[in-house]
Amino acid sequence: MPDVVVVGASGYAGAIAAAIVWRHPHFELTAITAREDAGRRLSDLYPHHRVPLELESFDPDRAGEADAAIVAYPHGTAAPAVAALLERGVRVLDLSADFRLRDVATYEHWYVPHPHPELIARAVYGLTELYREAIAGAELVACPGCFPTAAILALAPLASAGLIADVVIDAKTGVSGAGKKPTDTTHFVSVDENVRPYGVGAHRHMPEIDQELGALGAPVPVVFTPHLVPLDQGELLSCYVTPTERVSQEALETLYAQRYGDEPFIELVSRPPGVRDVRETNICAINVHADERTGKLFVFAAIDNLWKGTASQAVANLNVMFGCDERAGLR
Amino acid sequence: MPDVVVVGASGYAGAIAAAIVWRHPHFELTAITAREDAGRRLSDLYPHHRVPLELESFDPDRAGEADAAIVAYPHGTAAPAVAALLERGVRVLDLSADFRLRDVATYEHWYVPHPHPELIARAVYGLTELYREAIAGAELVACPGCFPTAAILALAPLASAGLIADVVIDAKTGVSGAGKKPTDTTHFVSVDENVRPYGVGAHRHMPEIDQELGALGAPVPVVFTPHLVPLDQGELLSCYVTPTERVSQEALETLYAQRYGDEPFIELVSRPPGVRDVRETNICAINVHADERTGKLFVFAAIDNLWKGTASQAVANLNVMFGCDERAGLR
Amino acid sequence: MPDVVVVGASGYAGAIAAAIVWRHPHFELTAITAREDAGRRLSDLYPHHRVPLELESFDPDRAGEADAAIVAYPHGTAAPAVAALLERGVRVLDLSADFRLRDVATYEHWYVPHPHPELIARAVYGLTELYREAIAGAELVACPGCFPTAAILALAPLASAGLIADVVIDAKTGVSGAGKKPTDTTHFVSVDENVRPYGVGAHRHMPEIDQELGALGAPVPVVFTPHLVPLDQGELLSCYVTPTERVSQEALETLYAQRYGDEPFIELVSRPPGVRDVRETNICAINVHADERTGKLFVFAAIDNLWKGTASQAVANLNVMFGCDERAGLR
Amino acid sequence: MPDVVVVGASGYAGAIAAAIVWRHPHFELTAITAREDAGRRLSDLYPHHRVPLELESFDPDRAGEADAAIVAYPHGTAAPAVAALLERGVRVLDLSADFRLRDVATYEHWYVPHPHPELIARAVYGLTELYREAIAGAELVACPGCFPTAAILALAPLASAGLIADVVIDAKTGVSGAGKKPTDTTHFVSVDENVRPYGVGAHRHMPEIDQELGALGAPVPVVFTPHLVPLDQGELLSCYVTPTERVSQEALETLYAQRYGDEPFIELVSRPPGVRDVRETNICAINVHADERTGKLFVFAAIDNLWKGTASQAVANLNVMFGCDERAGLR
Repeated sequence: MPDVVVVGASGYAGAIAAAIVWRHPHFELTAITAREDAGRRLSDLYPHHRVPLELESFDPDRAGEADAAIVAYPHGTAAPAVAALLERGVRVLDLSADFRLRDVATYEHWYVPHPHPELIARAVYGLTELYREAIAGAELVACPGCFPTAAILALAPLASAGLIADVVIDAKTGVSGAGKKPTDTTHFVSVDENVRPYGVGAHRHMPEIDQELGALGAPVPVVFTPHLVPLDQGELLSCYVTPTERVSQEALETLYAQRYGDEPFIELVSRPPGVRDVRETNICAINVHADERTGKLFVFAAIDNLWKGTASQAVANLNVMFGCDERAGLR
Repeated sequence: MPDVVVVGASGYAGAIAAAIVWRHPHFELTAITAREDAGRRLSDLYPHHRVPLELESFDPDRAGEADAAIVAYPHGTAAPAVAALLERGVRVLDLSADFRLRDVATYEHWYVPHPHPELIARAVYGLTELYREAIAGAELVACPGCFPTAAILALAPLASAGLIADVVIDAKTGVSGAGKKPTDTTHFVSVDENVRPYGVGAHRHMPEIDQELGALGAPVPVVFTPHLVPLDQGELLSCYVTPTERVSQEALETLYAQRYGDEPFIELVSRPPGVRDVRETNICAINVHADERTGKLFVFAAIDNLWKGTASQAVANLNVMFGCDERAGLR
Repeated sequence: MPDVVVVGASGYAGAIAAAIVWRHPHFELTAITAREDAGRRLSDLYPHHRVPLELESFDPDRAGEADAAIVAYPHGTAAPAVAALLERGVRVLDLSADFRLRDVATYEHWYVPHPHPELIARAVYGLTELYREAIAGAELVACPGCFPTAAILALAPLASAGLIADVVIDAKTGVSGAGKKPTDTTHFVSVDENVRPYGVGAHRHMPEIDQELGALGAPVPVVFTPHLVPLDQGELLSCYVTPTERVSQEALETLYAQRYGDEPFIELVSRPPGVRDVRETNICAINVHADERTGKLFVFAAIDNLWKGTASQAVANLNVMFGCDERAGLR
Repeated sequence: MPDVVVVGASGYAGAIAAAIVWRHPHFELTAITAREDAGRRLSDLYPHHRVPLELESFDPDRAGEADAAIVAYPHGTAAPAVAALLERGVRVLDLSADFRLRDVATYEHWYVPHPHPELIARAVYGLTELYREAIAGAELVACPGCFPTAAILALAPLASAGLIADVVIDAKTGVSGAGKKPTDTTHFVSVDENVRPYGVGAHRHMPEIDQELGALGAPVPVVFTPHLVPLDQGELLSCYVTPTERVSQEALETLYAQRYGDEPFIELVSRPPGVRDVRETNICAINVHADERTGKLFVFAAIDNLWKGTASQAVANLNVMFGCDERAGLR
């Protein structure tokens, strides 16, 4: 049974990753670490996860004994930990942005000076449905951001078919996406009875979506605007595509069915999904609509930002890396 | 002091209209009516409005003694009441869809057979900021739907300038927009922790937006998708415009400032507004963004769907019709 | 592997019971029934449960082939279905109130004329922690109401020790407790930003709490007031006990530890629990406080009203009845 | 027109006080101050209040020119500002706890060493309904805490009549009561879908309730437990009184009607109130129930914690102090 450590288990996503591995039939959770909360039990921070392990300080040598590590540190902070783990032969799933962007200049434009640019080329982009084979053999998996996960899954069939001339992505997300740190933005009174756009024209997930859609065949800059809505977990993306040619409802559905028909974690649904439908699952629910009136194609995609958008997608990748059923431990 | 009646005061919007008129310095609320709730006090239905009047059955002759009427009946049901009131010389503000669409066939496609098509030509579209002068002299004002109110205000400056080649409108709305009737859709458990698109490609407010933007100079079919979010009152519209020519941020701000600089109920704001900012006001808050990366123009507009989107806009029109300060009774 | 049917699986609790049995390692879910929704798939009603079975009309002969049935009908309607099933040798777990009250007059005072009073004596009260042995051999288990579940678990150690002279129970509950039917009370706009007491002095769960606390040794009429709060699932009971004698914090903790130390589904916690801590679990979290200032004893208990309060408690009982590990299928 | 300053206008309550005075017909808001946010406009912090004034640093000499000051600083910090204002002849309404407790030792047990104990005797406790006459002539008004406001109003008639042998107060409050500072407790994800007791057996408002009920004739230590519920503004107190003698429903209603019949801001309601009913008002809604079954008396009281519980109560007192209609500026 492979040993797994979760580095940075005190944040929302790291804690969920730890909880899933803790109950996983094929992995052993041997350690969880945290920077500020070392010494506390995870169950004190998150009673509902019921993981009684104690959080430790990160010790590369001790963590280096594991077979795999899920690293849930903030960007910039993750890369050094990843480097230390790779050096000790540990296979790493990184939840940060540090190895998602292949172009170091783009990374440094949106984030910080990259601590380990030499490792970027060793990373596989961890969107299971697109890069399953590469993930199986990877030493370093850069798990996608929550918005890119939903956006790319929503649009990949159209991008691959060369059908995207232009696309507007309007996203609605719950508050957990902003992380555990208390701020004016995450204060209950700020969010309650409110809905508000943020990161307008400048959200960090935009270049990641561009990179991946471009690689698939849609080299267009996306419009991407997230909105904060009063709920804790969940993300709905409404994608409005101007197609390069007219596409019928039937052809659209066929395109998605061919691409995703066998995917265990994609549900093609006949009505627009709500985020409640996918809460605490690794599922991305997708609905497509060819709009007769305007000729546009609408794609609605719902995920749980902390699960499929982050933690459970990492575990699905872990399953792939160690030859388990991709669904193991994910209900 | 002109006498005003509110016909259909037991729904959310009618009750607010009644409450505003009840406290208005220049009008006398002489009667409120309801179909099912006649005989009850409005304060029993809505304690927080604190309007102690009793709801009556609608009697055209009694209501006909008023100087003006706000009619808050459902579509199809409103027209006969409006007809009866007009016949008795009452000036009418209708909150339903019955007189908003100038083309009767369009109305009948989206709603029901029109009970009084002969009256359509007598109606003025009640968007105060666009048709103030016509409203001043109107006998019948067809107050806009809540989504059209925000959409048209958001886009009018661009439409008038011939700058809209294409537009996607993604709307987020609170639950009160669905009305007071309990349904599966308005059940707390359906809405809570959820966000879901509805009326995809087929919402009744679409032709109304088309009609008005077309009249202003943007004859393009709009993409319009509303989403239900877990809050009670408020509406945010995110509009993504492909312009007919490149527009700079400065030019965009100037365009809006010129059009709306003197408007008492439009706030041009420097950051994207949240719906909390306009709760229980007649204000439409608008933020514009010229997106360098994609060349698109973003317009974000927030209103309270029950106030500016319905009830308080009617009172602002009432002020205009009777020569009062447009802001009277609206704080 | 015993066959189980869920009768009345279209309500909130019945659907959860079906979902748990559907994924249970030791039972086979052979049929689910509904009155109004027969012919629809459960996954259409509740996408997030992902149970693809079709709802059938209730046929006693077909249901009678099962080894056990969970009946989730409303009170009065449940009893005839229970009678038909018992007659065919099926062991029944009834989620309604029909067989909870041992005194038929009390039942008829609070509910309706009892359709099958002759069966009352055959029922075991299904609070697992109190009646585990009787449940193991029962043909009919009357599963407790959600409030009584939490109230009795919170107070049983004190009641058994003869320590309750007087008790006030103030409960806060999510909206799912009011059921799936849309009403004015469950409308999002009624609940949102609100908290309100209901059933004051006259809630149907009161006699059930009295009966059970009385049986344990506390023959006092309880004060019990539920309050509706804006959340979907979860119940917190705050119990204020005037003790028959002074009790120290240490003695109080010892009393609860002795009674509940080995219970798999009771968590004695050192801080007052929140309902989030027990969401979607069969756990009752309990915190005790001996108040020096007033001499009173406070007991706070949190459960998920649809899980431990209804559906998962039924499955725990099913485990007991068929000799499985009590925790099987419940994580 | 008297000049008023609001000292500490950047917190929730101070900002509301400023907004009410800003629109008040009989007072002039001449300055607003803040410690950290000096230099910003209040409308930047709270767009929905629409108060365009700039926040200044507190300058006792400049503030000393006003006729009255509302001080909304935290406890311990308020007293020195109050002292400086009193010295300059300004009449002060203090929203902090600094002058509420008449016994300095009690204050210092619950809060901090008192910076100005010599001023305590000059303060009048600012519960308008109880101390209206003393407030009219006061130089320093110590406005009550939000919980004491509701608790004392709920129980005063019973306390004065010597009817309280014992009382349990179970309170439910929105998040704004915890203030504007972002903390783990006020993070949206902590509050959402949760309800949790806090300050069990040790909340600072307890001695204040004891002091006032004792003064009225109920020298019993109260049980008082607040619970945090997922809403922003509003407070519901459920009070369970063991009376010194049996009281009928009719007698109970008469007692309250006699005491509160003429009060402009107390509503005696026939059904238990919800906090939505009193949102953004200075009203305390009270419902009483004599419980036949247990002989106990239930009193439910709802207020808006930021309005009647803090800011609007201060303005009502201001009205009283300057001889205005008590309702002026409060709708």
